[in-house]
Amino acid sequence: MSSEFELIEIFQHIGAEYYKQNGIITGPGDDCAIFDLKTPIVTSVDSSVENIHFPSNASPEDIGYRAVAVALSDIAAMGCKPIAFSLSVSSPIINESWYKKLADGVEDIAKEFEIPLIGGDLTKGPLNLNAIVFGTPFSEKILMRNKAQTGDYICISSSTGRAKKGLDDWINNKKDSEYLTDYLRPFPKIELGKNIVNFASACIDTSDGLMADLEKMLKASKRGGLINLDDIPITTDINDINSGDDYDLCFTIPKDKFDNKFFKIGEVTEDLEIKLISDKGYDVAIRGYEHF
Amino acid sequence: MSSEFELIEIFQHIGAEYYKQNGIITGPGDDCAIFDLKTPIVTSVDSSVENIHFPSNASPEDIGYRAVAVALSDIAAMGCKPIAFSLSVSSPIINESWYKKLADGVEDIAKEFEIPLIGGDLTKGPLNLNAIVFGTPFSEKILMRNKAQTGDYICISSSTGRAKKGLDDWINNKKDSEYLTDYLRPFPKIELGKNIVNFASACIDTSDGLMADLEKMLKASKRGGLINLDDIPITTDINDINSGDDYDLCFTIPKDKFDNKFFKIGEVTEDLEIKLISDKGYDVAIRGYEHF
Repeated sequence: MSSEFELIEIFQHIGAEYYKQNGIITGPGDDCAIFDLKTPIVTSVDSSVENIHFPSNASPEDIGYRAVAVALSDIAAMGCKPIAFSLSVSSPIINESWYKKLADGVEDIAKEFEIPLIGGDLTKGPLNLNAIVFGTPFSEKILMRNKAQTGDYICISSSTGRAKKGLDDWINNKKDSEYLTDYLRPFPKIELGKNIVNFASACIDTSDGLMADLEKMLKASKRGGLINLDDIPITTDINDINSGDDYDLCFTIPKDKFDNKFFKIGEVTEDLEIKLISDKGYDVAIRGYEHF
Repeated sequence: MSSEFELIEIFQHIGAEYYKQNGIITGPGDDCAIFDLKTPIVTSVDSSVENIHFPSNASPEDIGYRAVAVALSDIAAMGCKPIAFSLSVSSPIINESWYKKLADGVEDIAKEFEIPLIGGDLTKGPLNLNAIVFGTPFSEKILMRNKAQTGDYICISSSTGRAKKGLDDWINNKKDSEYLTDYLRPFPKIELGKNIVNFASACIDTSDGLMADLEKMLKASKRGGLINLDDIPITTDINDINSGDDYDLCFTIPKDKFDNKFFKIGEVTEDLEIKLISDKGYDVAIRGYEHF
């Protein structure tokens, strides 16, 4: 058994080599971390609760990686570059090796995106992680979810339902499933955000389900959408449009910017409704993840 | 029973009137909030877990107020001005009125310090709040905990042990105790931080216990201290020097800056040891709050 101080030390130096390049003049170890940047800063927090955001038998490495990855997806949705993160961990576990494994997973994603851990909190309690992420714009522009324009194409970049399939395969103990990674180690679409930031009109990440998040983006933009279900790349079946955890970006672009490396799934309409059409006879309603 | 979306709406507009004055160009409602400031930004996160940071029978108003207040104390310790906060709430409660009361307490402190809520997360799970706070310097200088100088006076601003007495009185159902507020609604010492920032050499907030936090500050400064226990203002008995939750500031100042509105409790020494002396015969060791 280790002291709180010893456990904190396991995390304290993650990504310390990136402080300077990312404008961090004080990392963990004081009452606050300090950013010194002349650019705007974007920030978001995402919590990961055992048995809700990850199964209780997930490895500590995956739990750590995933907690930070899902938060970084919000930075991707803004078309921004991640620069740092904090991690608050409540855990009932007293075994030091568990924390070392958790820190290994956190370090994997920190190195992937060259971002340092700049602070956090460690308390005893039911397992609950909160990742706070920070980013700066790649360009002058920051992507918002409320600027979709009538006539824009609605796009995604990959098949929906991959994470749901990954979770199902995990539960069913299919250890060699290619989808496990989609669920356990989602890869935030930072590159995609960077690529579309200058011509996309609006963007959101798909965490609660493609349709539920698309609905939020269109609602924020005071627009509707005509969605062709036949054009949505799915993994298992059409219900995948309501599966959460994909962490893709759903974005709107002017027609003339369309590139067939994206999947066009519909168009933005003037009225506030979302209409789902299908020649294949798909019949499905919009449903998002509901915590309460 | 309310949807997650309806519950989020209860919090979304807290302090919205302060966005502009505090450099926030996007508040809650997008994937990230956006700061646009040309100054450094300080940030910290503090978690509040039921039965560890607050008793399970505390009112939702006090739970909300306290969660943000204790995090703001870290901004005070940096000699900075709070500008915004985010709040991540995991809760098993489905009763909307509980969230409204929680939001009332959060709003009380948001108004007190003129800071808006800029984001957060709401998930189902064991009760756990994470407050993320942001600040900017009052002056050019930011206070650190690692700059205490040999010969500096070590000071605090109020009696230690008040919060511990408040918690004891709460547990013993002494509803008219003047100390309840010290525990349930600690008042972050932002004004004190502002007053001392330009001449204090180092500062830390006292959350884990006066002696434990003083020890951290001296260790970070690679210094020791000679502490006169007789000079420490206490509430109940000398063990108060190890009581947590006071959220006062403990700071070091050059001798010639001493002002008797502060309590001088000792001096910074060159060696790394902390020596406790007493003519009254006090005999007590340093002990901090240990989560694990």
